[in-house]
Amino acid sequence: MVKIKPKRLLADLHELRKFGACGKGVVRTAFSQVDLDSRQWLIGKMTEAGLHVQEDGIGNVIGYSRNSGQALLMGSHTDTQPEGGWLDGSLGVISALEVARTLLESSNTQYRAVDIASWMDEEGTFCGLLGSRSFCGKISPEVIANAKDRNGLTLTEAIHAAGLNEVPVARIDPGRYVAYLEAHIEQGARLVSAKKHIGVVTAIVGIRSFKLVFTGEQNHAGTTPMQLRKDAGMALIRLANDIDAVYRKISGDTTVWTIGHVKFEPGSHSIVPGHAEMMLQFRDPDSRLLDRFEAALYDLVAMGKKTGPVEITIEPLGAPIPPAFMDDGLQEHIVRAAETHAPGDWICMPSGAGHDAMVFADILPTAMLFVPSIGGISHNFAEDTKEEDIVLGCQVFATAAASILKAHT
Amino acid sequence: MVKIKPKRLLADLHELRKFGACGKGVVRTAFSQVDLDSRQWLIGKMTEAGLHVQEDGIGNVIGYSRNSGQALLMGSHTDTQPEGGWLDGSLGVISALEVARTLLESSNTQYRAVDIASWMDEEGTFCGLLGSRSFCGKISPEVIANAKDRNGLTLTEAIHAAGLNEVPVARIDPGRYVAYLEAHIEQGARLVSAKKHIGVVTAIVGIRSFKLVFTGEQNHAGTTPMQLRKDAGMALIRLANDIDAVYRKISGDTTVWTIGHVKFEPGSHSIVPGHAEMMLQFRDPDSRLLDRFEAALYDLVAMGKKTGPVEITIEPLGAPIPPAFMDDGLQEHIVRAAETHAPGDWICMPSGAGHDAMVFADILPTAMLFVPSIGGISHNFAEDTKEEDIVLGCQVFATAAASILKAHT
Repeated sequence: MVKIKPKRLLADLHELRKFGACGKGVVRTAFSQVDLDSRQWLIGKMTEAGLHVQEDGIGNVIGYSRNSGQALLMGSHTDTQPEGGWLDGSLGVISALEVARTLLESSNTQYRAVDIASWMDEEGTFCGLLGSRSFCGKISPEVIANAKDRNGLTLTEAIHAAGLNEVPVARIDPGRYVAYLEAHIEQGARLVSAKKHIGVVTAIVGIRSFKLVFTGEQNHAGTTPMQLRKDAGMALIRLANDIDAVYRKISGDTTVWTIGHVKFEPGSHSIVPGHAEMMLQFRDPDSRLLDRFEAALYDLVAMGKKTGPVEITIEPLGAPIPPAFMDDGLQEHIVRAAETHAPGDWICMPSGAGHDAMVFADILPTAMLFVPSIGGISHNFAEDTKEEDIVLGCQVFATAAASILKAHT
Repeated sequence: MVKIKPKRLLADLHELRKFGACGKGVVRTAFSQVDLDSRQWLIGKMTEAGLHVQEDGIGNVIGYSRNSGQALLMGSHTDTQPEGGWLDGSLGVISALEVARTLLESSNTQYRAVDIASWMDEEGTFCGLLGSRSFCGKISPEVIANAKDRNGLTLTEAIHAAGLNEVPVARIDPGRYVAYLEAHIEQGARLVSAKKHIGVVTAIVGIRSFKLVFTGEQNHAGTTPMQLRKDAGMALIRLANDIDAVYRKISGDTTVWTIGHVKFEPGSHSIVPGHAEMMLQFRDPDSRLLDRFEAALYDLVAMGKKTGPVEITIEPLGAPIPPAFMDDGLQEHIVRAAETHAPGDWICMPSGAGHDAMVFADILPTAMLFVPSIGGISHNFAEDTKEEDIVLGCQVFATAAASILKAHT
């Protein structure tokens, strides 16, 4: 049985937390100075662990095992949201480091190969999942050339400023790996609600987002009788209400839908809105359910257009993200490890959030493990996880990693 | 029979239009240089008409008749919205000027007294209905001291810059007047829809406005199951839809209601809104109906709060504006004049918009006349009225003014 070192794990997490610490949270957006500094620290830690470390031309930090044979790849990301939590992806990166160290230190596993990585800019300061997509060869030069942060700084400028413009970009050698594993905080409240401490991820949900635009006629709110109005705002409210009512009927247990953005123009309390827009997003691990939601949406829009008098247009907001399925065999290894360390204290669940793991899922057998988020809070300075849960998650992952490597190599 | 001079009326309207002309529209906000220049021009026109002219300390331009006996007071405003139409209140001011001139030129009416005015800042660049409220003693020094335009310029600074800070403010002598009359463009499409050319105003609607704030919990749109959400945005959509459904059932013919402003925070397509707000306004000439609307609103909010899980607060947005009733006897004079010049071509109707006339309605017998707005468009560069309608409206008003003065003095 491999045994992680809880104090070392927690000490490293707290040391990483200092880069960009802001109250209880962390501000360490991709390519910021604290992000670059934290990568140097991480390179030191990986080197100390005996790994051969590469910082690639997109900012990924990858520690390759010096052992021969097929390897496990484990990782996540250390960049944060503009107001980020201290764990988020960092938990996965430092857990991977601790697993790699633990296996190298244990007599039964000291010759196993575990590569570990911090993928650049998962959070999308410039471009979401940048590092993992680059490593997997899933991002085009155009996308990289056009990527900008919210202040207009281009990714190209950021790479240059980081001194990485002459550095080669790392690419995956799929033949080297038996699997990709990622630990992450749950970012939701399913584990807390279910009073369980380990989440074994079954799938990462597919996501489809749409923008709806309503064009009516801007008018005086006093002099325009109801029957002469073309009120873009009311058309939006009615359609949004109808969408919600239909979705409640046809949704599955894991489906979520969100109207996160609504805007009325001109937005005065005394003017009938001539223009309104909304953004709708829905997620589910089942593509057939996503299809059903999309069909219902287009039906309701068509009905609204027919009824009039407001024009409605709908278009997808970005490319749809298909569901990514976690490997059944890997899930079994994790479940067995969870049963060993915390019998009955785990559930299988989908991930409602996107993760670097989704980029790997069609290239390598892939799996994820979640630890609970206190109060379900994430992307927030208040995000946190109990220390015993962090330790338990890492221990389960170490046992699972040893068992996967044993079974496959 | 008094006969206006159509060419003179239209020429003066077109001359006034030049102050701040912008394409087909006019930009002549209160206290702007073009507004101040136009007032000098208007002073010249009133003086030329034989009136004794006063520009008062708030910017009102008032032309007093030199005839003795009780007088009619006629007026409107020459300031515009930031993107205003060329007629709007200017139609009423120049029509009043033409009526005053016509009566002075006609042998039957040459000894009648008609005072005319352009009231400052009806449109609320600094403070809505400023001039008429000041003239009627309905505005406090505090309101004036605190009034600012959207750039932060104070009304006090604007008065100073106009050189009016040492000038006394005019106050109404209610004993002097038999009535207040105001002509205006309709600003809506009721006349056009009804294919009529004169609107005899029965009442200016009462207005009540409310701000509703929804406080839920901001959450990740992927990891927060539907049953654990406190979605402020969806709570708003459901309540807004319910309000509209109930209002359709209990509204009268003339009731209008508007949700002109809606905001979701943080407003990202990937985040469950934790905060949302909306502004609701309704208008009707009948206070009992306004009471019914308000009661239904508070009932729905109470129901929404009880259902949860989102907190809802509601507060009035500004003071409620009570309906202002036009004098029945004056309406009869206008109807008779309309029947004389355009038999069957008029309707009685409420005014959905506020006007200076509402300030006078509880001090003097008050009446208004509307001419059609092409396409119902107002507060817009495209606002317009056919020349024959402008002329007809002024002629009807001149005949009515003569008949009112004959009956009352």
